[in-house]
Amino acid sequence: MRYPEDKRLLVENALNDFSSSGGKYPKLIYEAMRHSLLSGGKRFRPVLLLVTAEVFGANPLDIIPAACAIEFVHTYSLIHDDLPSIDDDATRRGRPTCHIVFGEDIAILAGDGLFAEAFYLLAEKQMVDNPNKIVRVIKELSDASGPRGMIGGQVLDVLSTGKKIDTDTLEFIHTHKTGKLIRASCRIGAILAGASADELKAVSDYAEYLGLAFQITDDILDIVGETTSLGKEPGSDERKKKATFPSIFGLDRSRELAKEAVSGAKKALKSIDKNVSPLINLADFVYERNN
Amino acid sequence: MRYPEDKRLLVENALNDFSSSGGKYPKLIYEAMRHSLLSGGKRFRPVLLLVTAEVFGANPLDIIPAACAIEFVHTYSLIHDDLPSIDDDATRRGRPTCHIVFGEDIAILAGDGLFAEAFYLLAEKQMVDNPNKIVRVIKELSDASGPRGMIGGQVLDVLSTGKKIDTDTLEFIHTHKTGKLIRASCRIGAILAGASADELKAVSDYAEYLGLAFQITDDILDIVGETTSLGKEPGSDERKKKATFPSIFGLDRSRELAKEAVSGAKKALKSIDKNVSPLINLADFVYERNN
Repeated sequence: MRYPEDKRLLVENALNDFSSSGGKYPKLIYEAMRHSLLSGGKRFRPVLLLVTAEVFGANPLDIIPAACAIEFVHTYSLIHDDLPSIDDDATRRGRPTCHIVFGEDIAILAGDGLFAEAFYLLAEKQMVDNPNKIVRVIKELSDASGPRGMIGGQVLDVLSTGKKIDTDTLEFIHTHKTGKLIRASCRIGAILAGASADELKAVSDYAEYLGLAFQITDDILDIVGETTSLGKEPGSDERKKKATFPSIFGLDRSRELAKEAVSGAKKALKSIDKNVSPLINLADFVYERNN
Repeated sequence: MRYPEDKRLLVENALNDFSSSGGKYPKLIYEAMRHSLLSGGKRFRPVLLLVTAEVFGANPLDIIPAACAIEFVHTYSLIHDDLPSIDDDATRRGRPTCHIVFGEDIAILAGDGLFAEAFYLLAEKQMVDNPNKIVRVIKELSDASGPRGMIGGQVLDVLSTGKKIDTDTLEFIHTHKTGKLIRASCRIGAILAGASADELKAVSDYAEYLGLAFQITDDILDIVGETTSLGKEPGSDERKKKATFPSIFGLDRSRELAKEAVSGAKKALKSIDKNVSPLINLADFVYERNN
């Protein structure tokens, strides 16, 4: 495994700091936010952001608030996804979900609070040489997490659960629900590091393939994985009648598709005249998860 | 009534434009967002933002995206407040609430979508002479709508419903749940118009008094108002055992408190060397609502 553990640790510590109540009242909202935020995991999106920024010449230490903002948004989306009226999940990353511990009302508000704090982190804590970069980054994050991004994918997922769907719909759900935020992670890292327009395009292509590979391997792990590595109980997609790559293409073909997506990701990096090996390693990490 | 109807109309038209799906898929999320967003009302917060900006020399036409962003956030908060697990309201502004029409899952996501779009409007649509202004505005909006603002007040409201609370708790709920966004409306208008630090301080004081007056008169209208002017059925606070100014202080004393708050708002404007009469008119409008 070639995962950049140093960056994961940086993120982990910063998430703890940035979500502290600092004595603020009411404490309960911070407790609920932290329950879901500080439950471990690979921190894939913020690590991807930091790795991308470093490839384009930034110091990861300077980009931590933006990396944490991405994880705040990801965690908020998980809290809302897990709610009884949406996916109705009682466990996540091996722990009871936010609404199980704090109630549905507080869980909704904890998600809302994390989403607000993501933008606060960017506007207040992320230092930059040029404020235009922050405006661009906020545009990326709001676009990727709203109706044209994550929320759009989530809506189609809700509408499709329990129904037979075609591959176009499956692709739309995944490119939006998971893909857009992964793409934004790469783009935000690149923007903050001052990547050129061509580099930004190349890294966006990489991220689209990477997001697809990530989703396929996630679907595969839901069938063959163990609870410990998956963070949720295997088989939950099938129980919930979710459309997945294996349910449409079968396991073997899904593994091939994951492999193709990882190759596509690596190929997209070829035009970048920088040392892109940390991004290649991350693509390998995503593929190796299912082996 | 001295309400700036011209500005309300500007906002109304822009809200319609900014929430259009533009052919985007899935259409349902835009329909759910628009159901709640385009249900009329005074548009008090965006109008307050435009009026404040104009007082400090900006052209309201240049500030419309920021004004709409505030209304997006306000509407998102109403959608989530109305959910079965929070206030469980079936009507709002005389219409069925979002979850009644679209289901709880889509209503949660419609709120989330509006919140994301608020930041997108600021980062993508709001033109400024200096990008630092947008960063400051996004800091104001995210701070006012998160755990230290609206969400904090909402959490305490949830925790207090059905309980006997003291006046400090009542004040905390209102200054946060309603007050912070009203304050942010004034501050964002002033920041975009280039107000000085002293002017910003004065207009923030004004907004805090105004927000208090707004909340007290809202509570009074819930008792004495008619459904048409209130947009919700009178008596809902009492039915839900919400702590309100009349429930703690009685109607007569609440009217006095509203009057004092309006005087405080006007007094706060005295240090501003501009024509502040549009802000004075808005304060009078808030007070006259309950007479």
